[in-house]
Amino acid sequence: MLRGYQSWAFENKPVILSTATVVGPEEGNGPLGDDFDIVHGDMTLQEKTWEKAERKLMEEATKLAIENAKTTKEKINFYVGGDLMNQIISNSFAARTLSVPYLGVFGACSTSMESLALAAMIVNTGGANYALAGTCSHNCTVEKQFRYPTEYGSQKPPTAQYTITGAGAAVVAAKGEGPIITRATIGRVVDMGIKDPFNMGAAMAPAAVDTLQAHFRDFRIEPGYYDLIVTGDLAKVGHAIASELLEKHKIPMQQTTFMDCGLMIYDLDKQPVQAGGSGCGCSAVVTYGHLMKKMRNGEINRMLVVATGALLSPLSYQQGESIPCIAHAVAIESGRRE
Amino acid sequence: MLRGYQSWAFENKPVILSTATVVGPEEGNGPLGDDFDIVHGDMTLQEKTWEKAERKLMEEATKLAIENAKTTKEKINFYVGGDLMNQIISNSFAARTLSVPYLGVFGACSTSMESLALAAMIVNTGGANYALAGTCSHNCTVEKQFRYPTEYGSQKPPTAQYTITGAGAAVVAAKGEGPIITRATIGRVVDMGIKDPFNMGAAMAPAAVDTLQAHFRDFRIEPGYYDLIVTGDLAKVGHAIASELLEKHKIPMQQTTFMDCGLMIYDLDKQPVQAGGSGCGCSAVVTYGHLMKKMRNGEINRMLVVATGALLSPLSYQQGESIPCIAHAVAIESGRRE
Repeated sequence: MLRGYQSWAFENKPVILSTATVVGPEEGNGPLGDDFDIVHGDMTLQEKTWEKAERKLMEEATKLAIENAKTTKEKINFYVGGDLMNQIISNSFAARTLSVPYLGVFGACSTSMESLALAAMIVNTGGANYALAGTCSHNCTVEKQFRYPTEYGSQKPPTAQYTITGAGAAVVAAKGEGPIITRATIGRVVDMGIKDPFNMGAAMAPAAVDTLQAHFRDFRIEPGYYDLIVTGDLAKVGHAIASELLEKHKIPMQQTTFMDCGLMIYDLDKQPVQAGGSGCGCSAVVTYGHLMKKMRNGEINRMLVVATGALLSPLSYQQGESIPCIAHAVAIESGRRE
Repeated sequence: MLRGYQSWAFENKPVILSTATVVGPEEGNGPLGDDFDIVHGDMTLQEKTWEKAERKLMEEATKLAIENAKTTKEKINFYVGGDLMNQIISNSFAARTLSVPYLGVFGACSTSMESLALAAMIVNTGGANYALAGTCSHNCTVEKQFRYPTEYGSQKPPTAQYTITGAGAAVVAAKGEGPIITRATIGRVVDMGIKDPFNMGAAMAPAAVDTLQAHFRDFRIEPGYYDLIVTGDLAKVGHAIASELLEKHKIPMQQTTFMDCGLMIYDLDKQPVQAGGSGCGCSAVVTYGHLMKKMRNGEINRMLVVATGALLSPLSYQQGESIPCIAHAVAIESGRRE
């Protein structure tokens, strides 16, 4: 299964049986609004705290993904999940509700593809019949924990990103109908010395490029193999830097369409999101909602999702540390061309 | 590889090539002091903050484990690690230093066996030639983050546990000499409604019992198969509760030796540790230091380590939530009896 140094090829073709996405109002109003399963009109989800609201997003997404897979939670062997909250409480509490054996993971916003890669690996090796992968974020919990409570109304520079409110989940199975997870590349931690938590995109871009280079090297393929390569949430600043770095390294990205989930989820001209979206939920809902729909429709046949994460904490920032970043890539294919 | 509902049997016999343990002064003064590779006499490790000290523990343990395996970090395909710090910064920063592809995980104090189970699964399936698993904790970082800074000198009830200062790491490989990882059982989240963060043992005991029951059921074996079954860090209160619950469920634990890492690491009569040790590092250093030595010496041939974790955050506690808990079990065998 190991390919090259840091990649996995999934020979047994683990299938994405189903996905589910649940988002908040800002995401529902964005250009991809119609592609999400549930759009909440109220950021509180009628819960008493933002944290309880975030957990509910995750609970709804996992429940719906299991329903969409036409199975029951008793059939799910493992839930692989994580989020940005301290001690990943949104997922741990959602896992309590699910009552499914649970593997907590953390890769900041790369958690979406870390959890999907691990779920695929476990299913591929016969370690599970069904594995569920999921992640989530909520604008108000993340802003409160990493920066200031939103009620405080602090200003932000244009390089800042807007944490999306949403949860995404996918049921991966050994058998059944659906897009296939064919490959994954697990990233190294890359730190270029950037210390500004209001410019995560710039910090994360080199990690995305490092993982993309590793992916092409380990599988000896070119970007053109994929119809679409999409980064997690580099947004405006980071995606431009990643494009420049890839050009500098002579990676022929012009062979494919190269996009970013943080740029796709909002209309940057009309929505108050600075450089674009971010958060664990960002690449999860764009991939599991919008892109899976495109794959099912036949608009794309092969895609590579490179979710990026900034592994800082408020404390590491306060202690003068720079921002270590990581990116994990997962390839999903319709199987139609094969 | 799947056995029963939530367990893995590792047919390809992943080997623990090496381990390394690094601890602080209190652990060095305890009954297992001689079994650790490095004992620091100073809790600061000459670093400016407790968090930087904790990270250094992890960096030293991973470096030494790689040296002890007579390999180099360039040969390690994946590092699987996590810790109790918000956004698992000790491990993410240690992974930056290592520069090895990194899978961040979180299961509170069960992280030790979550990371080892995943490393074994990845190696077993041919997904890595070498995988490194590790975790750590530091008394002063954890007390500060979850309760009060130690300098504040707040009093504690006798049910409280003392977070150990230490890091443990293991190199798991597809080939080579060493104890074999034969089985793993991934736990469900169990929550019996306990809300007191000064009584983690009581909260975690039912999770340990749930995972033990699942392990015996999935593999159709009895406790007597193992020379030793050891829980992670239930300490005095929790271990007694777990023993009672197992008796109630008619699990014949009298067939084996049943112990707890949180009780083994300190002398409860002489050291100021209340009910015993806890923290991600606790089961890691006891297993990788003390128990692996006993296995290499031939004193034990088959052991099952059931690491327990309390998945709360200070915020979930402040919002009135109870403490969801989890336990992951990993079986390690010398191979001598086989």
